[in-house]
Amino acid sequence: MQALVFSHGKLALRRIEKPVPKKTEAIIRVRKAGICGTDISIASGDYKIIAPVVLGHEVFGEVDESSGTSKIPSGSRVVSEINVSCGVCNLCKSGLRNHCSKICTIGITRNGGFADYLSTPIENLHLIPDSISDEEAVFVEPLAAAIQLTKMASIRKGSTCAVVGVGRLGLLILQVLKIQEPKLLVAVTNHTRNRKRCNLARSLGAHEVLSLEGARESVERFTKGIGFDNVVEATGNPRALDFALELVRPRGTIHVKSTHGVPVNFDLTKAVVKEVKIQGSRCGPFEEAITLLKERRVSTEGLITDRFGLEEFRKAFMKAKSPESIKVIFVI
Amino acid sequence: MQALVFSHGKLALRRIEKPVPKKTEAIIRVRKAGICGTDISIASGDYKIIAPVVLGHEVFGEVDESSGTSKIPSGSRVVSEINVSCGVCNLCKSGLRNHCSKICTIGITRNGGFADYLSTPIENLHLIPDSISDEEAVFVEPLAAAIQLTKMASIRKGSTCAVVGVGRLGLLILQVLKIQEPKLLVAVTNHTRNRKRCNLARSLGAHEVLSLEGARESVERFTKGIGFDNVVEATGNPRALDFALELVRPRGTIHVKSTHGVPVNFDLTKAVVKEVKIQGSRCGPFEEAITLLKERRVSTEGLITDRFGLEEFRKAFMKAKSPESIKVIFVI
Repeated sequence: MQALVFSHGKLALRRIEKPVPKKTEAIIRVRKAGICGTDISIASGDYKIIAPVVLGHEVFGEVDESSGTSKIPSGSRVVSEINVSCGVCNLCKSGLRNHCSKICTIGITRNGGFADYLSTPIENLHLIPDSISDEEAVFVEPLAAAIQLTKMASIRKGSTCAVVGVGRLGLLILQVLKIQEPKLLVAVTNHTRNRKRCNLARSLGAHEVLSLEGARESVERFTKGIGFDNVVEATGNPRALDFALELVRPRGTIHVKSTHGVPVNFDLTKAVVKEVKIQGSRCGPFEEAITLLKERRVSTEGLITDRFGLEEFRKAFMKAKSPESIKVIFVI
Repeated sequence: MQALVFSHGKLALRRIEKPVPKKTEAIIRVRKAGICGTDISIASGDYKIIAPVVLGHEVFGEVDESSGTSKIPSGSRVVSEINVSCGVCNLCKSGLRNHCSKICTIGITRNGGFADYLSTPIENLHLIPDSISDEEAVFVEPLAAAIQLTKMASIRKGSTCAVVGVGRLGLLILQVLKIQEPKLLVAVTNHTRNRKRCNLARSLGAHEVLSLEGARESVERFTKGIGFDNVVEATGNPRALDFALELVRPRGTIHVKSTHGVPVNFDLTKAVVKEVKIQGSRCGPFEEAITLLKERRVSTEGLITDRFGLEEFRKAFMKAKSPESIKVIFVI
């Protein structure tokens, strides 16, 4: 089969063996797979991984005819959770399976879905109902990650929220926050001239779209100098944490979603003096994401800007890095 | 009066006018004042302040004969909270007086207590009962700051806790955490050869004293590879956050107390992947600190290692920086 392999610091399309599943695994015939910020960071060398590995962890496909169980028969439309845990280590036994001490992550530390086929544990599979299209299903993984920020630190109804970063993840986060019924929801970006993104941010729930540079003025204008209760950092930019610190109110929460792999340099003393909470969050609940898509409470309309075959991977990654694009997917 | 003034990047003992209190203020005849990590950071130029200012914010004294009210008459033994707020800005009105938009902080942005006299708002004063000695009273301010970490993120009974830094603040934090009844309480330091500190840490509540370099092994040995539920960073060292990240369990909390003023460089991606909470906390409840001292639930025995007159300030600050000292105070 063909697969997009990251090896020796480079991406390359290779022919490799179709995976042979273990007893507890299933083979997915991949149909669509989204490029995520982490993929870009891995490809650029910022996010260090133990290569070689097939990238791709936002994957939709069908259970291959060679696989299938009574619950998830061959041909089922599925997505896969990305963390593969051992189930027996102390972290797993303490209920933290997504933090297993022997964790493997699909598309990061074990082969992912930028390929014709993906082998994944059966327990990681989630059925996609017919009312969710193939392309919508690509968003289940990042949408679950967006939901997860509300699990790690809840968003109070009637609070004030700012999402820094209006990209592929930020536009999902905006919608998730909107569901929490904030009093004020703003998007903050250094791409305020990018009309498409700004209009999308507005149509998906942002009351205002503000510029990153004007952070301090925004606090004055929109929160009477108090600052935002919740600031989500979803830029993928290591410098953005200091901006988030400007925007957040004393004793407020900065929810961090970026995993760019680059050490950040920031004013921790300011975070202490403001008594701020900085909360990391990662992978989230797939079933809740599927429900939100099914119930049309989250829209992916307009989010996919570019579609490529695997053989066009160079162009695809270039596009994914460009501010003109939002979600770039492979059609396989 | 004499006062230790930080001006143009230097500390100097000067003769300045005795302060004239505003109507809402009282004059304290300072008797004892502790040197804190923030004072050292200010004196070294790391923590930037708008000088000139009299340093000193851990202050015990008596209400001067020129001052006093019916509730707090002249001669009363008192300590003073350090934040002076306007009471009318939106932050004050929203209940965040310690984060007032026009905040002045005694010994940092308005004159402090390394001086014969200190002028402070009457509402900032707290009476010290006779059962608390003058030298114990110096610890009310830092003890309140130690308590505050449990207010910003509670410490669950039966949890596992590590305090990184066994200094003037760390030894108070250990005692505050002990009161929360953790299952495991360890102190972590790069001064494991300093017997006095390590013995103090043990006698004040630490089950074990571990070395900073062996952080990863400690996680294995003491928490079965899971990591500590709570890690308190109280080193005053900008590099310590990455150590705390090694020690904390996935979804655990790092409580940050250091305000060294230096930008920190750390692996935010790891914090996101581990879904860690980094919680800053600063000034705390004085009455609770007074109660803990009064009820002998927190001990300051052995913590004051050096006493100096104001005129010996150079020696005092040198001592305060040395790992052999713990708390250095001025006797005025």
